[in-house]
Amino acid sequence: MPEPVLMPELVNSLMLQECLEAPMVIRRQAQANAGAVAQLVETLRQRPPPFAATVARGSSDHACTVLKYATESHLGWPVVSISPSLYTLARTPLRLGGALVVAVSQSGASPDVVQTLRQARADGAVTVALVNVQGSELAQAAEFVLPLHCGEERAVAATKSYLASIAAFLPVLSGLKPDEALSRALDQLPQRLEETLLLGPQATQLAERYRFAENLLILARGLHYGVAQEAALKLKEICGIHAEAYSAAEFEHGPKRLLAEGLPLIGFQSSDSAAQSLVQAYASLAASGADLRTIGPAATHLRTPATGHAFTDVLPSTLAFYLFAERLAALLGLDPDRPALLQKVTRTL
Amino acid sequence: MPEPVLMPELVNSLMLQECLEAPMVIRRQAQANAGAVAQLVETLRQRPPPFAATVARGSSDHACTVLKYATESHLGWPVVSISPSLYTLARTPLRLGGALVVAVSQSGASPDVVQTLRQARADGAVTVALVNVQGSELAQAAEFVLPLHCGEERAVAATKSYLASIAAFLPVLSGLKPDEALSRALDQLPQRLEETLLLGPQATQLAERYRFAENLLILARGLHYGVAQEAALKLKEICGIHAEAYSAAEFEHGPKRLLAEGLPLIGFQSSDSAAQSLVQAYASLAASGADLRTIGPAATHLRTPATGHAFTDVLPSTLAFYLFAERLAALLGLDPDRPALLQKVTRTL
Repeated sequence: MPEPVLMPELVNSLMLQECLEAPMVIRRQAQANAGAVAQLVETLRQRPPPFAATVARGSSDHACTVLKYATESHLGWPVVSISPSLYTLARTPLRLGGALVVAVSQSGASPDVVQTLRQARADGAVTVALVNVQGSELAQAAEFVLPLHCGEERAVAATKSYLASIAAFLPVLSGLKPDEALSRALDQLPQRLEETLLLGPQATQLAERYRFAENLLILARGLHYGVAQEAALKLKEICGIHAEAYSAAEFEHGPKRLLAEGLPLIGFQSSDSAAQSLVQAYASLAASGADLRTIGPAATHLRTPATGHAFTDVLPSTLAFYLFAERLAALLGLDPDRPALLQKVTRTL
Repeated sequence: MPEPVLMPELVNSLMLQECLEAPMVIRRQAQANAGAVAQLVETLRQRPPPFAATVARGSSDHACTVLKYATESHLGWPVVSISPSLYTLARTPLRLGGALVVAVSQSGASPDVVQTLRQARADGAVTVALVNVQGSELAQAAEFVLPLHCGEERAVAATKSYLASIAAFLPVLSGLKPDEALSRALDQLPQRLEETLLLGPQATQLAERYRFAENLLILARGLHYGVAQEAALKLKEICGIHAEAYSAAEFEHGPKRLLAEGLPLIGFQSSDSAAQSLVQAYASLAASGADLRTIGPAATHLRTPATGHAFTDVLPSTLAFYLFAERLAALLGLDPDRPALLQKVTRTL
């Protein structure tokens, strides 16, 4: 393992500390969950679902956005995003019998997510919880549990649990439809995340550039769209910057107008099937005067280690963004562990 | 029909003119589409789908957000939002055989939406196009067409076509699971929209208040969430304001932090199953100092006519917001019909 360039005296936030734990978490999780993954894969082979569904809130829901695209493009299973309010407010449960329903939550404590998964299970869905707190209500409600194995997450801003949520489910996709490149990429993912932690200085340099930014749009397409959602949330939470995620394809349908107001852009640049379309879109935006910086495996400005598969590539992209956001908060004189007005566990109904 | 309070000399934008046409469009559409709706309902009764899916871009996709919630809560059919890039970039089509697939587009010209619907039909889905331009590629690709009957839409910012997309599909829900209140509400919807047009002065007054706003968050839950998405897009497009839609439930998961930066809020206040949760959330935000104004059938600040059903209530809410946004653009000295950098028909791949 290469020595992280971030010096111990700089590791002064819980958020950064938990980012540094990410490679270890992903390594531990892969070993610990192998049996549970095999069991779930076997069940899904015997009871193939007509479609899948996810239920989550906040960062966990952004992980679901990534998992939706990965599941759809790998298996062709359509994935529904469930609004918990259908269960808690409208009281009109969905017809989910036979479907695969995946709930994601660090704490496993949000009552709306628990209630939705419980009813889905009663309706005959194959229910899976990706959850960090074992023994939580959500873990008890699900037929299958893939623990995140993050250890305690103490920072208000989720980091390792977001990465661990994605990493926990990808082996299920690989098990259902074997893919040599994906298996290899998953095996090597902890090393790639360690290498990503070496990007600290570049992330700090990029952060310095945004010292005075108040608004941002964060663009992506396909697999990285859920990363853009997570990145925008992080800038809101810990930097107080109004950052919004937008699909680079949707951007032409209106939001592009904001460039006339001088709004800066950050774009995730993938190396997957969306890569060429993104290169063209970003080049055209830059040519028309947009302030644009890119992050990701094929980025110009903050390039992350290639993992060998598009699904796993989103993890270094996210981790690099976390380093950037944490440093930006520090430059703004803010404590990323004490964002104004927020609490760690949010209970919605 | 009551006389609209907006004087002819004030009707100086295409956008406003097309807003004024909305009641007529909805009335014409209900009559013209009755036969096509009955045929589609009969087909869906004979071939009940395991789930439904939507495909659209921009404003049309925000209409799909509303239709997803309405379909899910009325019929219990889970609704998948399809990313066209799965078809155009990743080339990994979804397994949609037997499903109901609804494409929405004013122009019917976006190649990605056309390609997705065409392949869904080849895979055995029941395909429906909600489309304004009859004879468009999208209309030709679908098994069933529910024309929007908007007449020509010339303003860059969609208004009547958004309202017409929602109104075109609601009778299908009513046909599949008869609901006396919904039928009556649909019958009376054109009158309720005419009454909404009388809110011009109140909308202007509210617009004056936001003369210097640069950022906004627009909150909603449930059925009105797709209205919040559409409202945020409108403020971006025609006012150059960075407005972002957020679920009032998700707001606690991070975005709330932005209140410490003084970001103003606009909240849609429904009178449906989400009403009580919204009243509490908005009261708590206002009590903690948030600048919050509400729009909708149970709003304090811009109250729209009650239509007698939650599904139809979203149309007056949206129309009132359009009046507000159009006036705000005028106050900012901007021509809502000539937003910088935008074109009417966007063709994405």
